[in-house]
Order: sequence, then structure tokens, then C-alpha cells
Amino acid sequence: MTIEVYLATEGRRIDAALRRYLPSARSIPATVRRAMSYSLFPAGKRLRPTLSLAACRALGGRVTDALPAAAAIEMIHTYSLIHDDLPALDDDDLRRGRASSHRMFGEALAILAGDALLTHAFEVLSIHPRPLRLVQRKMKVIALVAQAAGVAGMIGGQVLDLETEGRRFGPAMLRRIHRGKTGMLISAAVQAGGIMAGGNRRQLEALRRYGDGIGLAFQIIDDILDQEGTAAQLGKSVGKDRQASKATYPALFGVARSRSRAERAIDGAIRAIAPFGRRAAPLADIARFIVRRAR
Amino acid sequence: MTIEVYLATEGRRIDAALRRYLPSARSIPATVRRAMSYSLFPAGKRLRPTLSLAACRALGGRVTDALPAAAAIEMIHTYSLIHDDLPALDDDDLRRGRASSHRMFGEALAILAGDALLTHAFEVLSIHPRPLRLVQRKMKVIALVAQAAGVAGMIGGQVLDLETEGRRFGPAMLRRIHRGKTGMLISAAVQAGGIMAGGNRRQLEALRRYGDGIGLAFQIIDDILDQEGTAAQLGKSVGKDRQASKATYPALFGVARSRSRAERAIDGAIRAIAPFGRRAAPLADIARFIVRRAR
Repeated sequence: MTIEVYLATEGRRIDAALRRYLPSARSIPATVRRAMSYSLFPAGKRLRPTLSLAACRALGGRVTDALPAAAAIEMIHTYSLIHDDLPALDDDDLRRGRASSHRMFGEALAILAGDALLTHAFEVLSIHPRPLRLVQRKMKVIALVAQAAGVAGMIGGQVLDLETEGRRFGPAMLRRIHRGKTGMLISAAVQAGGIMAGGNRRQLEALRRYGDGIGLAFQIIDDILDQEGTAAQLGKSVGKDRQASKATYPALFGVARSRSRAERAIDGAIRAIAPFGRRAAPLADIARFIVRRAR
Repeated sequence: MTIEVYLATEGRRIDAALRRYLPSARSIPATVRRAMSYSLFPAGKRLRPTLSLAACRALGGRVTDALPAAAAIEMIHTYSLIHDDLPALDDDDLRRGRASSHRMFGEALAILAGDALLTHAFEVLSIHPRPLRLVQRKMKVIALVAQAAGVAGMIGGQVLDLETEGRRFGPAMLRRIHRGKTGMLISAAVQAGGIMAGGNRRQLEALRRYGDGIGLAFQIIDDILDQEGTAAQLGKSVGKDRQASKATYPALFGVARSRSRAERAIDGAIRAIAPFGRRAAPLADIARFIVRRAR
């Protein structure tokens, strides 16, 4: 199976789960459900939930045990896109090739739809808490995801990004911003799959190293694509980072060095999961796919 | 002890817990921590967390077991105030007698500080998950709180409020909006205390009826205060509901009937917790305090 077919197959499984886990239309106002759905579908790459499922499989776990965590993390990723696009933040009109949420539904509903996806993610993480073994694993996942999405992770990265706008800064701050904005949730998605599979400390540490590696590579490649890509390829406004004179990997290191930095991170990620053998092949394929995007 | 002294004592305990549970200054950007703190302190009435602790005590539980849930619910309440005040929503400049978050820190940081408090609440709910008995209780609390704060609760109420703005509607919709916006989280705060105390089904059902009753009374009284109060008493802009021609209890039923409706709800709440005896006296006092506010 090629990685493209693999991603499409997993994407359908994840979409079905997302539909199942969305709050039922009976119990909630139709408008907010429509706004939640609009940003969740049609799919982006579904990178994060695919990683959760692949990590769960790499440790021999049952993929159904990881599905709620996978769906919840995609909801959190989606909420972050809605809020980031708001006029007060990145002020982006375009997302995944369509009008961003506030352009489509107005600012008030976009704020609330984002809040709703974030809150609902934790509801999804807390449902079906039997058997007891799974309750403990889920509690670990909730703690991990809340940290990765919170002020020490995604929100913190976004705040640093705001604070440094128009200011010069070096590689350490760039790394910190990227790790917060993107890396930590990607890494949490990987680890969550491993936790739901019942992975031991050594296994979870290997998954953490894999997750951190591909998270870094993903963001470097995103910076390169933002510089080189077109709006049609990306489905979002491009070159905005340059316009706002934000520091990016290519701006600090040039494209060639940035690309080789991403490739080194990917190599490290693949080495970290080598002990899992054949079952981890999809994780390695996903890692390679991440750098391939930039060619 | 008078109810005022009781509330002040519990308020100090809750403030200390909130300070302890805020993310440490080392690990996160200072600006977002300042914005989170600004809205959490100085205290409002701390009604919700006080209810969690009182409900836990009413069932003979240890108050320290309920403190994380109490603090988390206050964080969620606080995030909802920050987001509700945003220009795209209620556009309020004043909150608890001071500039609202976006007036103080700008809209971008206010959105992110709200997101941060919501996310951090779930982190607080997931920490210290031993012993195992408490893990199961906490998981129940996470599910309950996520539902009460989500699209079937607080966010749903806010969306309905937006949708019905400037339109006429009757008591059923008014009740639904109020229950969503205020009632469900107040009731969840009560039930969370009972869950952490290890309450059985019958006890939790009694607490739910108590919580629903005081939630309704609280909102009716709030409507009356909004109509009659002054900005100085309330520390927020008043008469806004009337200006926006929103339906309120006094608008639909008049002040006298609204007040007697609130008093009936309080009586029902107090009856529900009668089986708990003396230990539930503070819950009854809090219920009476809620209607007294309006005299």
C-alpha cells in the first residue's frame, strides 16, 4: 500500500469517527453544529489523528481504543485554526481553499464554534470510560493533550508569535514558537496512540522522540512551502509570514539548510521507532511523506 | 457563622487553590499568564467553586478531593466571561468593576487567555490522578463539566442568545437560554463536589435537583438585578439586556412574579437536600443568599 492510499484509508476511518463523535443535531443549536462541521469537513490531511492510530498499531494496540483520542486531537487542531484565522489574530480569509469560519459565519459564531470544538474534544476524551484499564490511559491522554494544547504548548506558541511580531529574533525563539504552535500537539497525537495501546515508559519515550522529530520537520517544511508555494497548492493565503516579517526557517537559514535540517529530524524520528519493527512501518512512511511534501 | 463569613472563608481557600493551579510563570509566556490572572483575581463571588466544596462536605467527602474540580470550574466560568465580553459578542468594556480583558490586553490576547483558561481547566481536572478511586470520579467530573460547558450547555446557550437577539420569544426559549448559559455549569459545580465525595446515584440526583433549582433562581435574580441595579452595584454595564430588547424574566413576567418564581425554585432546591441533614446547612444558606441578593 502506498502512503497516499494508506492516508486516504485512515482518513475515511477518522472522518467516520469525527461524524460519530460530533454532538447530535437534536440536542444543540443547528448553527453552531454547522460551523463545527464546516471546519472539520472536508478533511485536511488528518495528519494528527492518523499518527495516533499508527502509533497505537505500532505498539500492537487496538485501533478502536485510540479513535476517540485521535478525533479529539483533530477537533483541537481545528479549533486552533478557527481562532488563529480571526481578525484579531492572523486575519485570514481563506482556509483549506474555502472561506475561513468567521468569513462564513461571522466572528461571534466562529469564536463560539472554536470554543465548542475545544470543549467537545474533552467530552470525547472522557466518554466510554470502561474498562478501568482504559480509564487510566484516557486520564493520561487528557493530561497530555491539555498540556500540549495549553499555555505551555499551542496557546503559548501563539502568544509568543504575537509578542515577537515585527521583532527580530534568533533560532532559539523560532524553535520555541514552532514547538509550541505545532510540534507539541503533533507529538501528543503520537504519544496518545501509544498510551491507549498500553505502551510502557521506554516505548512512550521512543514515540515522544519520533513525535518531536516529525513535528519539527513538519514546521520547517511548512515554512518552506509558505515561502515557495502558491495559494492554490496550499489552500490558504501564502507569503503572509514573510510580509509580516516573521522569522521562519528559510529566512534564518536559507531553503537548502532548512530542508537538510528537516531531513535530519526525520531520520532521527525513524531511528527512534526502529525497535518496533515492521508494525511501525506506517509511522516511518508518514515521516518520509512529511519531507516529500516540500519537493 | 453567617453566610457572608462562610463565603469569604471559602473564597480564600479557593483563591489559594487557583493560584496554586495556575501554570507556573517559568514555563509560559508572561503576558498570557498576566491576562489569565487578571480575570481570575480579584475574586467574584466564587459561587460555583464554593458550591463544589459545600456539596462535597454535604456528602461527608474530603474537601481537598473537590478542590481541583472547584478551581477548574471557576476557570471555565472566567473564560466564558472573557469571550462573552469580546467586541464580536456582548462588546462589554467593564467586568467586575474593571476594564474587561480585551480592553486591558487587546482582543488577540483576550481570545487566547480565554482559550488558555478553558484548556487549563481540563489540565487541572486531570492532574494527581491517584488513588484509582479518584481517577474514576475525576473522569466522571470531566465528562460532566465538558457537557455543561459545551454546545448542549454554556456555549449552546450563548449561541441561542445570539440567534434570538432582537427577536421575540417565549418562556420556553428563555428557560433554555438561561439553563444553557448559567444553570448547567452551576448545577455541574454542585454535582462535581458530590461525585468527588463518592456520592451514590440517589445522592447525586438530589444534588442535581438542588443545582438546577439554584441555577434557575440565580439567573432570574440576575435578570432582576440587571433591570434594577446600577453599574456601581454590579461592576458591569447594566440595562444592556433591555437595550438589546432581549427577553428576560422581568420583561416576560414582571418583577414580582419573577421574584416569587425564584423563591419557589430555591425552596425546591432546599427540599432536595433535606435528606443530607445538618451537613448540608451551608448549601441551604447559599441558596437563600442567592435570592437575598435581589432585595
